[in-house]
Amino acid sequence: MSSQAELLERVRFNASGLVPVIAQQWDSREVLMMAWMDLPALERTLATGEATYFSRSRGEQWVKGATSGHRQMVRSVASDCDGDTLLILVDQLGSACHTGDRTCFDGVSVDLEGER
Amino acid sequence: MSSQAELLERVRFNASGLVPVIAQQWDSREVLMMAWMDLPALERTLATGEATYFSRSRGEQWVKGATSGHRQMVRSVASDCDGDTLLILVDQLGSACHTGDRTCFDGVSVDLEGER
Repeated sequence: MSSQAELLERVRFNASGLVPVIAQQWDSREVLMMAWMDLPALERTLATGEATYFSRSRGEQWVKGATSGHRQMVRSVASDCDGDTLLILVDQLGSACHTGDRTCFDGVSVDLEGER
Repeated sequence: MSSQAELLERVRFNASGLVPVIAQQWDSREVLMMAWMDLPALERTLATGEATYFSRSRGEQWVKGATSGHRQMVRSVASDCDGDTLLILVDQLGSACHTGDRTCFDGVSVDLEGER
């Protein structure tokens, strides 16, 4: 495991000051959602252990589940090899998706094996 | 499961014509990497069953593993609720990461539980 300073050194925010973050349920390994963090959102996530993102549409920080109660308790934060994507392992309370589905990937899915 | 037409209707490419794609190993559920597809890369992925991405640095399509042999055989392609992220379940041959690691998230990682 690394220090938070090592992580913050590694992360490369894009031209808009954001980094994409994949949230994965720590035990079932379901991929729950993808969202974005700016530096303050990442720092708040590290400080509080609750996933905090940056909304590109609203232009503001949001604590996941602050309204719905569907918070994400963060167990670990990993950077990829070139620092431009983060993977967080979380314990998702309730549903990750605003539709009420457990994950945001419960909708349209194509089975390629079935098609060949 | 949905049709490829439903998937292509759902996907929303960003202003650069790209959509982020999370690649997950289908059986172990490891998150392997995140990369980008443009429409031709997505269409090629659907047509061939081999993950094909768009390199933002090189400005061209790349078939994952075309040089290294570390191809990704795609089992399914799912869109998230608002169509701006894809999740593909793959069978990764060899390593996903160019460093030789199995996944791109094998480097810097902070354990938040350990820090509190």
